[in-house]
Formats: sequence, structure tokens, C-alpha cells
Amino acid sequence: MVFPFTAIVGQEQMKLGLSLNVIDPSIGGLLIKGEKGTGKSTAVRSLAELLPEISVSRGCAFNCDPSSTSLCSNCSERLSADGALEGEKRRMRVVELPLGITEDRLVGALDIEHALKRGEKRFEPGILADANRNFLYVDEVNLLEDHIIDLLLDSAAMGWSTVEREGVSFSHPARFILVGTMNPEEGDLRPQLLDRFGLCVCVHSIRDRNMRVEILKRRSRFDADPEGFLQFVQSEQNSLSEEIIRARENLPNVEIPDAILTRIVEITTEIHVDGHRSDIVMLRAARALAAFRGQERIEPEDIGDIVALALNHRLKRTPFEDVESGRKKLDELLDGLAGH
Amino acid sequence: MVFPFTAIVGQEQMKLGLSLNVIDPSIGGLLIKGEKGTGKSTAVRSLAELLPEISVSRGCAFNCDPSSTSLCSNCSERLSADGALEGEKRRMRVVELPLGITEDRLVGALDIEHALKRGEKRFEPGILADANRNFLYVDEVNLLEDHIIDLLLDSAAMGWSTVEREGVSFSHPARFILVGTMNPEEGDLRPQLLDRFGLCVCVHSIRDRNMRVEILKRRSRFDADPEGFLQFVQSEQNSLSEEIIRARENLPNVEIPDAILTRIVEITTEIHVDGHRSDIVMLRAARALAAFRGQERIEPEDIGDIVALALNHRLKRTPFEDVESGRKKLDELLDGLAGH
Amino acid sequence: MVFPFTAIVGQEQMKLGLSLNVIDPSIGGLLIKGEKGTGKSTAVRSLAELLPEISVSRGCAFNCDPSSTSLCSNCSERLSADGALEGEKRRMRVVELPLGITEDRLVGALDIEHALKRGEKRFEPGILADANRNFLYVDEVNLLEDHIIDLLLDSAAMGWSTVEREGVSFSHPARFILVGTMNPEEGDLRPQLLDRFGLCVCVHSIRDRNMRVEILKRRSRFDADPEGFLQFVQSEQNSLSEEIIRARENLPNVEIPDAILTRIVEITTEIHVDGHRSDIVMLRAARALAAFRGQERIEPEDIGDIVALALNHRLKRTPFEDVESGRKKLDELLDGLAGH
Amino acid sequence: MVFPFTAIVGQEQMKLGLSLNVIDPSIGGLLIKGEKGTGKSTAVRSLAELLPEISVSRGCAFNCDPSSTSLCSNCSERLSADGALEGEKRRMRVVELPLGITEDRLVGALDIEHALKRGEKRFEPGILADANRNFLYVDEVNLLEDHIIDLLLDSAAMGWSTVEREGVSFSHPARFILVGTMNPEEGDLRPQLLDRFGLCVCVHSIRDRNMRVEILKRRSRFDADPEGFLQFVQSEQNSLSEEIIRARENLPNVEIPDAILTRIVEITTEIHVDGHRSDIVMLRAARALAAFRGQERIEPEDIGDIVALALNHRLKRTPFEDVESGRKKLDELLDGLAGH
Amino acid sequence: MVFPFTAIVGQEQMKLGLSLNVIDPSIGGLLIKGEKGTGKSTAVRSLAELLPEISVSRGCAFNCDPSSTSLCSNCSERLSADGALEGEKRRMRVVELPLGITEDRLVGALDIEHALKRGEKRFEPGILADANRNFLYVDEVNLLEDHIIDLLLDSAAMGWSTVEREGVSFSHPARFILVGTMNPEEGDLRPQLLDRFGLCVCVHSIRDRNMRVEILKRRSRFDADPEGFLQFVQSEQNSLSEEIIRARENLPNVEIPDAILTRIVEITTEIHVDGHRSDIVMLRAARALAAFRGQERIEPEDIGDIVALALNHRLKRTPFEDVESGRKKLDELLDGLAGH
Amino acid sequence: MVFPFTAIVGQEQMKLGLSLNVIDPSIGGLLIKGEKGTGKSTAVRSLAELLPEISVSRGCAFNCDPSSTSLCSNCSERLSADGALEGEKRRMRVVELPLGITEDRLVGALDIEHALKRGEKRFEPGILADANRNFLYVDEVNLLEDHIIDLLLDSAAMGWSTVEREGVSFSHPARFILVGTMNPEEGDLRPQLLDRFGLCVCVHSIRDRNMRVEILKRRSRFDADPEGFLQFVQSEQNSLSEEIIRARENLPNVEIPDAILTRIVEITTEIHVDGHRSDIVMLRAARALAAFRGQERIEPEDIGDIVALALNHRLKRTPFEDVESGRKKLDELLDGLAGH
Repeated sequence: MVFPFTAIVGQEQMKLGLSLNVIDPSIGGLLIKGEKGTGKSTAVRSLAELLPEISVSRGCAFNCDPSSTSLCSNCSERLSADGALEGEKRRMRVVELPLGITEDRLVGALDIEHALKRGEKRFEPGILADANRNFLYVDEVNLLEDHIIDLLLDSAAMGWSTVEREGVSFSHPARFILVGTMNPEEGDLRPQLLDRFGLCVCVHSIRDRNMRVEILKRRSRFDADPEGFLQFVQSEQNSLSEEIIRARENLPNVEIPDAILTRIVEITTEIHVDGHRSDIVMLRAARALAAFRGQERIEPEDIGDIVALALNHRLKRTPFEDVESGRKKLDELLDGLAGH
Repeated sequence: MVFPFTAIVGQEQMKLGLSLNVIDPSIGGLLIKGEKGTGKSTAVRSLAELLPEISVSRGCAFNCDPSSTSLCSNCSERLSADGALEGEKRRMRVVELPLGITEDRLVGALDIEHALKRGEKRFEPGILADANRNFLYVDEVNLLEDHIIDLLLDSAAMGWSTVEREGVSFSHPARFILVGTMNPEEGDLRPQLLDRFGLCVCVHSIRDRNMRVEILKRRSRFDADPEGFLQFVQSEQNSLSEEIIRARENLPNVEIPDAILTRIVEITTEIHVDGHRSDIVMLRAARALAAFRGQERIEPEDIGDIVALALNHRLKRTPFEDVESGRKKLDELLDGLAGH
Repeated sequence: MVFPFTAIVGQEQMKLGLSLNVIDPSIGGLLIKGEKGTGKSTAVRSLAELLPEISVSRGCAFNCDPSSTSLCSNCSERLSADGALEGEKRRMRVVELPLGITEDRLVGALDIEHALKRGEKRFEPGILADANRNFLYVDEVNLLEDHIIDLLLDSAAMGWSTVEREGVSFSHPARFILVGTMNPEEGDLRPQLLDRFGLCVCVHSIRDRNMRVEILKRRSRFDADPEGFLQFVQSEQNSLSEEIIRARENLPNVEIPDAILTRIVEITTEIHVDGHRSDIVMLRAARALAAFRGQERIEPEDIGDIVALALNHRLKRTPFEDVESGRKKLDELLDGLAGH
Repeated sequence: MVFPFTAIVGQEQMKLGLSLNVIDPSIGGLLIKGEKGTGKSTAVRSLAELLPEISVSRGCAFNCDPSSTSLCSNCSERLSADGALEGEKRRMRVVELPLGITEDRLVGALDIEHALKRGEKRFEPGILADANRNFLYVDEVNLLEDHIIDLLLDSAAMGWSTVEREGVSFSHPARFILVGTMNPEEGDLRPQLLDRFGLCVCVHSIRDRNMRVEILKRRSRFDADPEGFLQFVQSEQNSLSEEIIRARENLPNVEIPDAILTRIVEITTEIHVDGHRSDIVMLRAARALAAFRGQERIEPEDIGDIVALALNHRLKRTPFEDVESGRKKLDELLDGLAGH
Repeated sequence: MVFPFTAIVGQEQMKLGLSLNVIDPSIGGLLIKGEKGTGKSTAVRSLAELLPEISVSRGCAFNCDPSSTSLCSNCSERLSADGALEGEKRRMRVVELPLGITEDRLVGALDIEHALKRGEKRFEPGILADANRNFLYVDEVNLLEDHIIDLLLDSAAMGWSTVEREGVSFSHPARFILVGTMNPEEGDLRPQLLDRFGLCVCVHSIRDRNMRVEILKRRSRFDADPEGFLQFVQSEQNSLSEEIIRARENLPNVEIPDAILTRIVEITTEIHVDGHRSDIVMLRAARALAAFRGQERIEPEDIGDIVALALNHRLKRTPFEDVESGRKKLDELLDGLAGH
Repeated sequence: MVFPFTAIVGQEQMKLGLSLNVIDPSIGGLLIKGEKGTGKSTAVRSLAELLPEISVSRGCAFNCDPSSTSLCSNCSERLSADGALEGEKRRMRVVELPLGITEDRLVGALDIEHALKRGEKRFEPGILADANRNFLYVDEVNLLEDHIIDLLLDSAAMGWSTVEREGVSFSHPARFILVGTMNPEEGDLRPQLLDRFGLCVCVHSIRDRNMRVEILKRRSRFDADPEGFLQFVQSEQNSLSEEIIRARENLPNVEIPDAILTRIVEITTEIHVDGHRSDIVMLRAARALAAFRGQERIEPEDIGDIVALALNHRLKRTPFEDVESGRKKLDELLDGLAGH
């Protein structure tokens, strides 16, 4: 049993970053930088508890969406044979990527046993199969081997995984929300890789004594009687879950005013971010936030509220260690730009 | 035959740290830092001799608790088939983790021989299976490979191990008391890993001549006639064993006054410990100590008596090499805070 | 679905470099140096969408050209048996080379399963087989292992791959357009390897605000309705495709005036480029450009327009980071030489 | 044929250290530090020639003692089946540990061939099986891999080896006398490991001309006629062998006066040796020496005669390179202490 | 199709070094040092086009000479069975050694498949078998692994390769002309290995404008119509081929005047070359040159013309980077010596 | 065909060192230090041509001496079965140890094929089997892996190799003459290993012009007509061979005067050589030289003539690079000592 998401004290940016990714997975995941013991992994695991159910092609090991045309090789065959795919409901979940994982475990491999017994080649799904349409959680992402992290980010970017082994080719959708954590004291990611995480948040332990006592109180209450504690926060959990579901549905209808596009470009050109990915991520995150808030269109405040999340890891040579101060700097920027 | 726990001269903090973990395994284990030849491994091995028996699901290789709902895949199946699990008594024991262990030996693997002969996949338990509800002892923990130590600490944190190999998934509870030793002269653990040990103690050889003569006397008496020596200390061994059993039973009933929570947070905010794990560990250790002492509630002295154990390895940049002086510094802190 | 090539804003040199290679693959590929997020991989993938179809020997895994005498071992046998090869149309495509690829996956290997079952040795094609007469795209080419990059560049130079495994020898044409990308912040290629890419371009993110807003607008329009967006640019896509096809046909007929040869040598001797590859590459690229522009012969302006592409990575010790300034310097050179 | 032990000229400390370990193996072995060519390996090999016979359980690959209750898994089974174990006599011997040994060769492994043929798992003994109740000789112990040396020292400390491989568990006693040699010019052992050798001796080549001529004379006589030379020293060999056997029998009867315990602790506290192992080793070595000398109790001179052997490798930061000078320093210490 | 050898502009030393080795393979190969793009590999490949045919034992995988007594194990057996070996004509060719080659691929290995199927051990030839009596071309020889380069140079020195695998021993002649290339910017060979190449040449790109235009002109003519170009130079190709064949035949008849021996030793003692290999190589190269020129005896000018080739890589600590200047220095030396 | 031993010009110390080892293999081999191209490997290979025949147990793969009691496991069995071993004559030969050799190839291994087919374990001899009673030649001995060189020197020291693999134990004599070469520019051996070579010689290229011309003349005569050249030197070859055979027979009868022992010790104590191996080696080498010279006893001049060979590699920190100067220094020493 995991400590409930809505009972987590503070850490609002981290919770926002996770929620926005659930609403629009094309934002591209979240990198959580922070010292030890700040509840990074608890937050991700507990979010999974209130994630909506998704409709999945019955029996599919790759969590294919029966209403999509982007299907794994098995479902594609079944669809052309039967004309339609039957669905079943599954909870979204958090799939963990173990350190030291091999490429075969990640992308799947041939089922040797099946091949030897039946004389036919069969594909054995890897972790990317489990992760399709779910969270993929990578603790200490900076300790992963380079070729694994590249495979991961490529799949995340393409939304698709193709494996070829001994003449067998198998493809399946791989649209997961990548959440990585890292302790910045233990070496950084290459800028190349940093940039491919949609959002980034820096977490710190809370220094406020009252909040700390509250954290300890909630934790000890949860330890003593986990089920009672869960009932206590159930309504909060439910309403957050519903807000997320509603936001996912409304996302395509959120309007994008031209002034918003201009504002985004003003910000990123002002602060000399490399490349164009920041523009697109800001646009998507602001749109998801607008949907989350139930708005019909993106407002300038939405930009202000996601700018740190989108730019934390893309600012050049001014490491944004302290989110608060970074936020202030960006707010000044926004004010300045607004004043034109 | 091992030198008896109660006949160990001195080293009170180490003995306390081990005992508290037996009373409440959720404290999260003990890291013993110390120079060579200070009896670290003897202490752990000898504690196992007086540990209480536990009730285990008959024949289960994973030491499942027949009264729990947290069961291995085999016991879960048996429970739903038979409606109940039969129990048997086993002694708790100390499972050692060899250096250079592979991931397969740690978490278990497929039984290839069985697969080839019978044509069915069967899971072969690893060391984490043996360790469930026992001590897991890792000598020179700083020499373990990173991915093994991560696996270990993850299992310790989750209390659960899940293995997937070639399409077979097997889960079992893995709630063990992790005891690691290390010689601080041979390199330190990363802070990330240090923090995940619940308690930490620094041991030194005893400089007092009379105590040293006593140690040598006891040892030579034990060498000459181990069984006679054991009879000599049997009653002490028994009473410690009973105290521990009683403390385990009373643990859930120990009250946690609000003033205790506040005091814990005062300490950790005063000394700037990273993260929130120290708060929770202090609370659990103090509660276990209160139960050990037969109290109804945690008293401020309990905090004072476990503060060094909980913070030794979490203090920033002021290495607490000398437990005594560290203790004094923390006592001042506590006095100062109490004086408000 | 990929963002369409003709809708890419700016990055003219990169688009030119890719197009010239499609017109004359003997130019030797393109190396794209640039910071993260500048759309390097999008450009290559989207070019593939409008590439012309090619005629391929029916069922050949190596994409053999049925009208050529340069054939894989299978097609050679079939040709001598049947007297002619049947053709089929296939689209050109972009084959990706994964980081961490093995030599066996690259050049092909024996089909062990087939050998065990049928008792005969059969060759299983590798990525070089897929790549024949297509693009071979290598992201972060500077991270490839040395022996892989050597194999790659050797095959590219020879246009041919020969594999020998356990007494079986298999050959097939391997004429692909090699496109590599690299982030210059992450270490450079050895000069030995740099020189073997025909052309090189340095890309940067666009700083002009209006262009950036335009990029963001197009991208968000494409995200919202990819198919609508594609229809919108279809005619532009078609006409570029036709221009390329026409240029390929006219290539052998473009005249090479002697003055052009002299001019090329003047440039390369003036700036002390090592080796003779630059002369030949400039000649081929200028001829491809002349064909692209529908000219009957190479004009001095064609030289001016490809000189940066051909020399960017061959200039000694004056790294040409900024294409624009590099271009200017070379233009001065050309003017000076023209003034003789 | 090996040069006889009693004909070795000089090197008295090395010969004493070996003999004491034969008398009481719980002393914990001997580390011989010394330059090349000082006869380290000859001494160990030649000692084996005059070692007493031991009684071994008939046919046991692990040299089990039929009169002990500490038995290998096979002998345990046979004992409960037959009620008693038959014995046979074997000579003690020197088992060598090759550099580059694998863990499987050291601790034993499954007999794969037997498993494939008979369908049952059988344990194939490793070098630790051979070594039980014998010498285990490790040349250049500082070049062993860390995990092998750890396995070795753990088995030496526990007197027991347990192997688990694919579900088969096998245990056997492993009480061997570990003798390691090292050239101090080629890097040292970690203090952690140094401390786990019971005794340590530093050997040097002999500088005295007469002794050197004597060595050369004996050697050339032995080379010319090994068997004649052996007959010549046979009586000396026999009487040493008998002295050792008698000492082993009398060992449990040697008295340990309290004043001896105090003296030991005075020495080790005076010179700040880490840990308590030195106290116990000194006590055991002094007792073995007393038994060797046929005394009824340990005398202060016995302490004086083994103090260098026990402390050579445990002195902090004052490397005891020259045994003679070290001996003098310790003698002063002993005199000083005695003067109190 | 390869650019023809005789149409290569300049690079006379490289062409001479290759030709002399074809005339007398015991010279010991050629090392070509030079920057990228100087046509090193084209020269070697194109030489193969005009190499003479050789007579080979029919069907022999090792290119055995049917008129020699130095035969592979198979031919030896056949010769003693049949009394004579039938010959067939084969063209000499250039065998390439891939980087990252394994020892098994180089020297050959057992044919496992044959062993499993037929129950007999059969030897599968390696690259040294192909290379016998041909060129063995190693691009970037300084990147080869040490044990491979040692195997290679040993076989080159012995002219013979013997392989023993699982009780089967197989021998065959391995007299190949080793040609290695290296870019001196990427690290040097160990002097030990340098010395074992018979000759060495340093190549540079040509700076002369007219020659560069000529190179470009020839290349573009060859690109446009390879077959036409080849016909154009066919007579030159033929006459070079004939000169080489005639020189091979006359080689044993070239006289070696004593004054030539003295002159060689004067040169090598004057410039302090290590070892005696330089003397022998100079003698052989001068004799091959005399034969190439159709002379009856070696003349002093022959020495002058090969001295740089033979000593380039053997001069101590005065790296001979610029062939021209090195040549001059050696010429002075020769003049000086001649003046005695 | 190899250049004949007696036709080698100069290099007297190397030739003497090899010859003495043939006369008395217990001297312990020869280490040849020298720059490239000084004919190190030619000398060893050519000596093999004139080595005497030895009597070998018929069909024995280990070259067992049928008149010895030191036999391989097979011959031991045959001897006890048949009562005697039949002999056959074989030439002594030079066995080469390839770089990168595995332990299995060196000491032998189980014959897996035989085991699978016949169901019985059989030992497949390694290179040490071939080497028994022959030369074992290791080119660039300083590049061997440490565990291989240790195995080698241990076998050389013990004269015996024992292999245990999966329960099969096989022993055979391994008395070979170890000859190692090394280029001192490429790193040295550890002193530990240096000391275990009996003798050591430093070779240089010859600077004398007349000798160089003579070398070149002989070599070119040999190249032109190897068989004629061999006939020319046949009588010299024969008489050297006979001298060696006679010396081997007389070796046990050479007297060792006491004054010789004293003189040896005077030398080694005077110059502070570590260990006692140098004394024994000097004695053995001087005795072999006396036998070679046909003397009845060792004379002081014999000591003088082998002192450099025995001490070259054992002198402390005064590297004896130049044999001549080293010889002089030692001669002074001898004179000085003689003057006492």
C-alpha cells in the first residue's frame, strides 16, 4: 500500500509536472532532480493509484488501444482478420526500469524456449511493452548506460518500438510517460539527453517546521492504520482523478491564441535556449494546464505557471538549482516582456 | 558455535541498533562502520542465536507469514485453493550476502534443469527469499556492485521482490533486516545509499585495559569449553530474548505524543539533515525503544537515546566519527531545544 | 506521420546537402553538426516521404537494381539461371542505425536456426542490406564504436559489402546515402573519419522571432490535424520530388568545363585542405547542383554554392562553427581567385 | 623430492610461525613477507613432509574427522545411517591455490556431467575440500582477486564452507592453515585483510658468509644425492615431528595464568593496535609455544617470543620491515611494562 | 572497378615500394604512412589488377605452389599419394584484414559443423590461407590489437602458419606481402613492430596545381566512363605487368658485388640503425630494383634509390616525416661515403 | 630452413647461455634482453637444429624418459602394467608459446569431444606437454599475462605439471628450458619474475663494420643457396653437438671444490644480491661450463665466465645494460676478492 498522492505535503511543482504529463503524454515526461529522501519515488507510485483506467485490446501484452490504428503486429493481424478489436479495462500503472537492464529486457527478444519446442519464432515482450500507455519510472536515470538511455528516449520520441531479431521483426506502440529521477550531486545528464525530457522539476526537503510536523503526523498515522488513512483522503483522491479524466477529454478543444505563440517565442529567444523543443513543450504544457483548469483557451497565466517546469533543464549555464529563485527570474522576464 | 550476544563486552550502541531493528524491522536496518577486529560480524551472528521463532507457511521457501495477506505467489495460490495456510515454527537467522553475488543469485532465477526435464517454468528462490523475515548480513557493503546494492535497498524499501524471467513473473515478500558493515578507511557509500540505512553506528576497539582483559578472559574461557560457557550465560540470553518478544507485541500500542513529533522536527531542522527520512526513522526507533523498555508512550529520553543512531550517517559534512563526542553535541542540541 | 520536408522553416544548407546526395549518392553522404533540438532527425525522416520510388529485383532483400550488373549473390545466380531479373517498385526509405549495434547486425550473419533445421548455411541480411540504395541514418555518429564506423565507411566507399562466416561468403551492393548527426559539444570525430563524409553542414536554432513563431504555428497546426496539414503542402512536396527525379536523370549529361576543374583546385590549394577527396567531392556536388537547377553545364556560381558544404569539415584548425561567417570567408576567397 | 625442513639454515621465525600453526590451527595462519629467493615456498613444502598423519573418514573427499561432529553433508548422512564413521590414515599436505582461480574451483561446484548422465545433482569438491585439515598455500597472496581472498578468509574464520548451486546446498568443514606469501615491493594487502592472518613474519636473505656457504653446500649435496641427504637428516626430522604431535595433544592442558592475560592487554593497549584480534592471537600462539616447549603453563617468555609474529602486521603506520629491530622495540616495551 | 595503377599521378615512392615487394616478397612488406585522402588504399587495390597470374595446386584453399616442397598438410598428403600435384592458374589478389578480426578468423579454426555432422575434425582456413602468395592489406594497422599484429608479423617472418586446435594440427605456407597503412596523427606503432615491415613510405597530398587538375580530370573521366578509361591506359598496364614478371624471373641471377655489401654497412653504421634487419632489407630491395631495371648486377645508384624506403622507419629519434628532406639527408650521407 | 647456429657472427654470451642450459636444464632458462633485429629468435631456433636426440617413451605425448621414475600418469600406469617402457628417439625441439595463450592451452584440458562421444574423461595435453625435455621459447615475455607467466615459472621450478579438471587429475613431468626474450624499451618484468630465470644476457647489434659485412655476406649466401650453406658449416655443427652431448654425460662427475663455494658467496654478498637463488645458479652454471670444457672440476675462471650471465638481472638498481662494462665491473670485483 502506498501513501496517497493527495496527502503529500508540499512539492507542488512535482505534482503539477506529473499531472500535466498524464493529461498530455506528448509533453514528453518529467525529470525530477533532487536530494535523497524527498519522496520522489513515493509521489510517482502514489499517482498511479488514482490514474484513470484505460481501454486495452483484450489479452494484448502491449496495451494496444483498440480504437487506434497504431497497433502492435499481433493486434494489426487480429484487426484485419476479425474486423475489430475487443477491449478490456486496465488500470494505468508505473513500470519500473531496473538499473543494469539489458537491451533485450528493454525492447523484448525472441522466446528461445518457444522456438526450440514449437519450431516457430515468437516475440517475448520487454519492458517497453509493459510501459505502453503507462508511466515508465527510472530511478537515478543518470546511472543508466548510454545505449539504454538512447533507446529509451528514441522510443519515447517516436512512440513506437521496432525490434528485429534473427529475421523476425516486431513492432508495437510505445507511448509512455517517462519519469526519471536523479540526485544532481552524482553527475549530470548530457545536455543532449536533458533536452529530451519534456519537463523538469527540482525538489528539496521542506524546511518549514509546521509542514514537517504535518508530514511526520500523516506518515505515522498512515503507518499505524493504512486503510483508515486511505478512507480519510478518498474523496480528495477521487476528485483529482476526475479532474484529470475531464482534462484529457477537453484537451483537443483548448484554443491556442496567436498572442500565446508570440509570448512563448519571446521568452525562449530572450533567454537563449538551444533548439526549438522548448517552444513546443511550453505550448503543450500550457494547453494541458488550461484543460486541467477547465479553461476554453490558454491564458498568459498558464504560460507563467509552466515556464519553470519547461525551462529548468534548458537554461544555458545558469543552473536553476533553486526553483523559487529561478521562478522569480522567469517571472521578471515575463513581466518585462508583458510590459512591452 | 558462536560467542553469546549477552557476553559481548561493551559496544552498547551496536547491540541497541540491532535489537531495535528486531523489534521493528521497518526501521530499515543498521550500518556498522568500524575498523577491523571489532567483532562486528560476531555480534550479528550471535544475536541470531537468541532471536525468537517465527511462524512460517509450511514448506514455503520464502518464509511467508501464514497470518498475513502479503504472500508469495505459491502461498497465494495455495491460500485460495485451501482457504488457509498451515504454519510451522522456524528460528530467525542471519543470511549472508557474498561479495560478487550475481543478480540471479540475489533475486532468484528460473530453474533451467526443471524446465528442460518437465517442460514447465519454475522459479528458483534467491537469497532475498531466504532473507525474508530474517537478517540479511552484508560484510563490507561498500564493496558491493552498484546495481546489486540498488536492488537490495529497493527490495528493503518495498518489502517485496518481483522477478520476471522469460515471461514468468514471481513475487514474494522480502522484509528483511539489512545489516551492513564497512571499514570507513576503504571508501564511503554514496550519500544516496547511506540514507537508506535506517540506523548507523560507529564501533571502535575498546581502550580500557580492564575491559580488554575481561574480553580476553571470556573469549579464552569460551574457546576452552564453549558449551560450559553458554550454559553460564543462558539465563541472560533467555531474558533478552523474552524482552524482545514482548516489545514486538507491544509495539503497536505505544502512544506517540504530539510533543514528540515536534521535538523530532526541531532536531532535524536545527541540524539541516537532507530529506524527511530521518524524521520517520527517529520516530520508529524511539517507539521501538519505548516498547523495549516496557513504556506506554515515547518519552523525550527515548529520542535522546536514539538520536545518534538515526543521525550518524545523515549529518552533512560533519563526519560523526567519534560516537561519544557526536552524542554530546546532539545532547547539547536537545538541551538547547528543551530550554525554549 | 512525419512533419513534411517542404514545411520546414529555414535550414537551407541542410536541405540542400540532403537533396544533392539524393541526386548523386556518390557524393558520399552528409554529416550534420548541430546542437540539440534543431530538427536534424525530422529533416531526414521527412525527406524520405517524398523520395522517388526505385525499381528493385523482385523479392530481393538487398534492394538490387534489376538493370545493373552489380548484384547480390542471390540475384547473380538467378540472373544466370533465368537470363533476366523481374523488377518491382519500392519507396526509398531511411534506415536507422541503432547505437550499440553489433557487427553481425550491421553486415549480416549466418541464419543459425536455418542451419540447424535444414542442414544448409543461409545468409541473414544485416542493416547494410536494408540500406542499399536508401538513406542510412546514424544519430550521434561520434558515439559509435570505432570498428563499426570503419565498417560503415568502408562499405560506403566501396559500395559493396562482403561477409564471410564459417566458410560461406556472401556479397551484395551497399550503395547508401550515409547521414550522420553529431552534437559538437560531445566530442568530435577523428579527422580520418570526418573526411570520409562527402558534405557537412552546421545547423543552429533559429533566433529570428518571426521565423520561430512560424515554426511553432506550423508545428501546432500539424499536431492538431496532421492529415489536413499534409494536404495543404502536398503540391510543394510533389514539385520537389519531381525536380529531384529530373535532376537524377540529367546528371550524366551535365558538362564539366576545364575552367571549373581549375577553379576547384585553386580553392583547395589556397586553403590547404589535406588529401584529394575535397576536389572530387566539390566536382560531384557542383554537378548535382547544376542538374538540380536544370543547367547544361556547371557554372562558377554552383561552385560558390556548395563550397561550404564540401569544406566545412576539411578546413585545417579553423573550425567553421558559424556557417554564415565561413561562407563569407570562402566567398572572399572565390572573389580573390576570380580576380586573377 | 623437497629439501628437508630441518636442514633449512636460519629463518627461525618463519619456521616457528609454521610450527605453531600446525600445533593450533585456530591461530589463523601465517603471512610470509619477503623478497624473492628466500626459500618461502620451499619451507612450506618441506614442512609438509614431516607433518603427522591424521585420521580421516574413509573415502571422504573433505578429509572429515571421524571423531568429530563437524562433518560434511555426506559424512553426516552416513553417520546417521551407520551409527559410526570408519577412519583411515592420511598424511597432512600442502594444497596450493593457483593465481587466477575461479570461485567454482575454490569452493566446489555442481558436477554437470553427472547431472546430465544420471539426472541427479552431485557436488564436486573444490580446493577448500582438499585443504580441510591441511595447509592451504597461496603464493603472492596480494595478487589474488578481492572476492577470492574474501571467500578464503571467511572460510578460514568460520572453519566451514557452504555452497549453494541451483537448489543444491552442500556444507563441509574447512579448517585449514592458511599460509600466504607476498613480496612487499609489489603492493600491500588492505589492513582489513592483513589483520585476518593470525601471524606474520618478514624474511630476508642471509648476509652472513659462513651461513651462505653452508646453505650452498647443503643445497649442492642435496642436488647431487637427494636420498642420501634425506637419510642424513632423518632423525632430526623425526624428532621434530614427534615434538609437534606431543604439543598438539598437550595443548588443551596448558594453563593460562591471569597475569598472562593482563600482560597481553598491556602490550596491545600500549602500542595502539586496532581491534581485539591481536589479543586472542597472542594468547593462542603463546599457548601453542608453551605446549611445543612441553610446559604446563604459559610463561612471560612465551609472550616475548611470539609478540613479533603476532604484531608484525598489526602495528599502525610503523612498518616493521626489519624483524630484528622490531623485536628489540617490542622487547623494550615488554621490559618497560614488566618494570611497572 | 578500380582506378588503374599506372594512371595514378605522382606518389612514385609508394608505387616503387609496392612493385619491389611484388618482385621479391622476402623484402617483408610495405608500411604506408600518410594523411587521409592520399589514395593509399586505391593504390594497393589497383596494383592487384595488373598482378601476374600464379600457378596454384588445383583446389587448394591455401594457394600452394605445386612446384614447391613447402606445402599445406593437405597438399603434402596428396603429393605423397599421387606423386605430383596438378596446377591451375589464379590471379594474385589483395586480401583485406578487417579491424577487430579474431585470432580464429586470421589463422583458421576447426569446422565445428563438419565435426558435429561427420564426426571428424576438419580445418577451416583463415585469412592467412587466402593471403598466401598474395597481398595482405591492413588499413590503419596501428589500430590492430597487439596479439593479432604479433601473429601477423610472426607468420610473415616465418612464411608459415601452424594451427593447433583440440588435438588437430594443421600447417600451411603463409608467404604474403604485408601492406599496412597508418595515419601518423593517430599514434605510432611500437619500434619493435615498425622494424618488421621491410619498407616504409610517407605519402602526402600533392600541392602542385597542375598535377591536382590532372588528378581531378583523370578521376572525372574515369567516373564518367570507367571502361573507356581503362582501355585508354591498357597498354601501360600491360607493359608494367610484363616488367614485373620478367624481374621476378631474373631476380636469382642478379649479382651482388662485395662493394655493395660494404656500402650498405657503411650507411647503416653511420646512421646508427638498431639491429641487422636494415642491412638485409636494403640488399634485397636493391637487388629487386636491379632486376626491375633489367640490370645484371646491383649498382650503387640502386642503393641510393631504395635507401629512404628501407630506412624511413628505422632512423632513431629523427622522424623522417618529409620524404624529400629525408632523401636529401641520406643522399648527402651517400655522397660523403662515396667520397672516401 | 633456419640459419645455422655456428654461423652466427658474435653474440657469444647468448650462445653460451643457451648451451649451458642444454647441458644442465636445472640452471633454469635464459632471458634475452635486447633491441629489435638482433637475431634473438634465430639463435634459439637454430640451436634446435643441432640439439641431441633424446630417448622418449614410445607414443607418449609428454616426452617421458623411459629410464626415469618421474613419469606422466599414462606412462606410470603402463609401467606398472608392463614392467618396463619401450623407448623411441626424438630430436629435441623449440616449442613456441604464443602471446595471448589461455591457461587451458598451456597446461592442457579435458577432451570434450572424447567425453561426449565415449562417455569417459580424457586429458588433452597442452603446450607444457610438448615442452617437456625441450626448449620453451617465449617471445616478448614481458607482454604475457601475469597468471600465465606464474604458471610457467611454477612449472619450470617444480619440473612437474598437475591439472585438475572436473574431477580428473593428470600429472606429467614438465622439465623444459625456458627461453624468454624482451625488448627493455617496452617495460620490464617484475623483479619477482626476473629472478626466476636462471641466466640473463643483454644483446646489442654489432657496430663493427667488418663483422656487419660478414653477417650480411653469410646471410645473402644462405638466402641464395640454403642447402649449400648448411653443408659448408656441417662439420662445425656436428662438433658442437658432440661437445654438448659429452658435457651432459660428464656433468655429474664434475667436482665442486669448497673454495669455489666460498668464492661464489663472496661475490654475491659483496654485491648485495637479494635471495639465495643466485648462489645456486652460479654453482650450476659454472659446473655446466666446466663439463662443456671437459674439465674434472670447477675452476675459478669458470666462475668468472658465467658471473655476468648469472647476475645481469639480479643486480640491485644498477641496471647492467652494457654487458661489456658490467663484465668489467664484475671482473674487478673478482680480482679484488682474489687479492684477499
